[in-house]
Amino acid sequence: IDNRDEDTARTELSKLHPADIAELYRDLDLEQAEFLFRLLDADQAADVLMELDEDDRHKLLSAMSSEDIAKQVIDHLDTDDAVDIIQELDEEDRDEILSHIDDVEQAGDIIDLLKYDEDTAGGLMGTEMIVVNENWSMPQCVQEMRKQAEDLDDIYYVYVVDNDYRLRGVFPLKKMITHPSVSKIKHVMELDPVSVKTDTPVDELTLDFEKYDLVAMPVVDSIGRLVGQITVDDVMDEAREQSERDYQLASGLSGDIESNDTMFHQTKARLPWLLIGMLGGIGNSLILGHFESGFALNPAMALFIPLIGGTGGNVGIQSSAIIVQGLANGSLDIKSSTKQLFKELGVGLLNACIISLLVLVYNIFALGPAQVTTVAVSLSLFAVVVFASIFGTFVPLTLERFKIDPALATGPFISITNDIIGMVIYMSISSALIAAFGTSI
Amino acid sequence: IDNRDEDTARTELSKLHPADIAELYRDLDLEQAEFLFRLLDADQAADVLMELDEDDRHKLLSAMSSEDIAKQVIDHLDTDDAVDIIQELDEEDRDEILSHIDDVEQAGDIIDLLKYDEDTAGGLMGTEMIVVNENWSMPQCVQEMRKQAEDLDDIYYVYVVDNDYRLRGVFPLKKMITHPSVSKIKHVMELDPVSVKTDTPVDELTLDFEKYDLVAMPVVDSIGRLVGQITVDDVMDEAREQSERDYQLASGLSGDIESNDTMFHQTKARLPWLLIGMLGGIGNSLILGHFESGFALNPAMALFIPLIGGTGGNVGIQSSAIIVQGLANGSLDIKSSTKQLFKELGVGLLNACIISLLVLVYNIFALGPAQVTTVAVSLSLFAVVVFASIFGTFVPLTLERFKIDPALATGPFISITNDIIGMVIYMSISSALIAAFGTSI
Repeated sequence: IDNRDEDTARTELSKLHPADIAELYRDLDLEQAEFLFRLLDADQAADVLMELDEDDRHKLLSAMSSEDIAKQVIDHLDTDDAVDIIQELDEEDRDEILSHIDDVEQAGDIIDLLKYDEDTAGGLMGTEMIVVNENWSMPQCVQEMRKQAEDLDDIYYVYVVDNDYRLRGVFPLKKMITHPSVSKIKHVMELDPVSVKTDTPVDELTLDFEKYDLVAMPVVDSIGRLVGQITVDDVMDEAREQSERDYQLASGLSGDIESNDTMFHQTKARLPWLLIGMLGGIGNSLILGHFESGFALNPAMALFIPLIGGTGGNVGIQSSAIIVQGLANGSLDIKSSTKQLFKELGVGLLNACIISLLVLVYNIFALGPAQVTTVAVSLSLFAVVVFASIFGTFVPLTLERFKIDPALATGPFISITNDIIGMVIYMSISSALIAAFGTSI
Repeated sequence: IDNRDEDTARTELSKLHPADIAELYRDLDLEQAEFLFRLLDADQAADVLMELDEDDRHKLLSAMSSEDIAKQVIDHLDTDDAVDIIQELDEEDRDEILSHIDDVEQAGDIIDLLKYDEDTAGGLMGTEMIVVNENWSMPQCVQEMRKQAEDLDDIYYVYVVDNDYRLRGVFPLKKMITHPSVSKIKHVMELDPVSVKTDTPVDELTLDFEKYDLVAMPVVDSIGRLVGQITVDDVMDEAREQSERDYQLASGLSGDIESNDTMFHQTKARLPWLLIGMLGGIGNSLILGHFESGFALNPAMALFIPLIGGTGGNVGIQSSAIIVQGLANGSLDIKSSTKQLFKELGVGLLNACIISLLVLVYNIFALGPAQVTTVAVSLSLFAVVVFASIFGTFVPLTLERFKIDPALATGPFISITNDIIGMVIYMSISSALIAAFGTSI
């Protein structure tokens, strides 16, 4: 590559899978990348582009003219990939590129697909698929399949529609082998195939793929007409993105962030949560400030601030994570919220008893049984654990009910909130006990 | 169902997909479930069994004799599913069931598959696939495919081997349509297909499926002979399990836990982390105990304990999550650890400057510029943020190097550790400043 030996490089590249070439690109600077990119044939170049990170892809595309993008990239992509690329571009570039696409049918499909919300089946589907009419004879179907199959990469199912283009069945390619000689396709197709509507949310779709073990699923419009197909590779990417997003939110990272992002990009994704945490900490200092004279009088109180804040945070994170995960993998139904809250109350009471009793025993030895701190810490721990369990369950369930992403309620948010509420509980109980009994009972 | 109307129930059930029947089962008690289960035909019953939760499956299976399990369940399953079921049983039941399998070839395959580690390609693969010899003519291949295809559910690729059963190529079924009439299969097959070895770890395999957008992948032994096939549905399940495990560990949940598990099961998965947190909190109280007289002298110090502990915890969780996610999705290479640590140092310094300066400004107004607390809090915050960034990056990278799951180092573990270290730093800096200047500078 460094020697700019075009022929050798071209031969080497043509042997590689696009995904491997994309990995090579990561280690190159922009100039080298552009040089290599020009060596690829157009089909390969378009595939490599799809495998690149969004940032790298953006760099390469911005160096190309709209016409080149249309002719050398979009023309060689499936419609779903073409839509993804066009969606990443500026509004004005979009129209220009669309006007340069030679294949009017493809351009029309892309414009149709651009209308769908990215997070629905319509936004994920492609229009490349093999479609036959239910009344055709088998030889007629095979001839038609042959014609349609030429432009397609992979085919797993053939979709069968009626005269109004309504989806009637699927015909797994396997049956081409096992049932080679039947008169009409409608006699061998599988009826009532699993399908989704264009407005089905992507996370529901992912669960359907997992549930029915499918490799592709037809997409129909509101009156059952076949409009596209979703393949399992797109679903896998979506599933990974979704679980990464949940994980990031639970860890206090906003936005899509990778370990190889720049320092400033990383700081941008991390600082917001840290600042919220900082405000929470300052809020805590104000709450504790009301008790400042109490610390002078009974400094032992200060020693258990981390224990109570930390335990509240940990319990809350656990509770919210169980809800978020249950909603994501479909095992938890929003309708059973009340049942879930009662169960969580049980779990919270059980954990609260165990932890506050253990700490009570420790403090009887460490501080003495007659110390007000001994009693206040265990009472507060009990209250904090029960409260954090309920709160950690209630918040994500409520968000889900209002169609807000419940994953927002995990990680830093729940631990900071519980930390503050823990301090309020601890300080209230301590103040009350000290007011009633003094520092030792 | 309640009326035990067998015929109606049977007709209804036969129309449903096994995954839907499995969902029905969730809402039934054991007696009803067994009644329904007996109504299913054997193929359907076996599929439904595979779709059930492990607990429910265990209940149903323990009510059956070994012979029934072998004849009514194992016989009707693909080898990879059969192995999964057998692995869930006790050691003694396994041999008994294996001895009852009529199909000696299937029993042999199962015994072979049981040898592989569950977390490798060998543990995930099945032996059901279509294999043809590279030297066969096309009509010979088609005839052979037809014979082999009868017992199989879905077929996506036909694998082509040489006379020594070494994998030579794949033949996508699509080519049956586009290239119907060629003399020998070796002229249309795709050479050098992507394949994995039996000992490839499952997480690597998952990344390969995502990278190459495959629906099935052949598995070869150490000398390249074809031994099995992995399908994308198994990989999707694995990918979900892996990301759920990472998420659970980050949220302080050990073991596989679901929102519909019993109260005691949940407590078992949650209490260990809470107890570790409790010990961490008690450890913190011991550290702060050395400073007890300091709180009596300068109670304002106590107010910022939650701020410093919480910020350290938040930073540490972010840093470790970025590493764990990068390792899981393959974007981070363990070889670039040093580079990653330096970048994290940069991010840490940047965040530390911003946060400690903001808190400094706040405290100058809240406490006054000459207060030792004002200086101590910002100095400690700076040190804690930098330390937590490095520590949160270093620990998961080190675990990965020693082949321990880096996800263990996320969530509660890292936040508790950073909480404790934060207190040590805060108390040391405060003590030193008070010793040098008294409570106001």
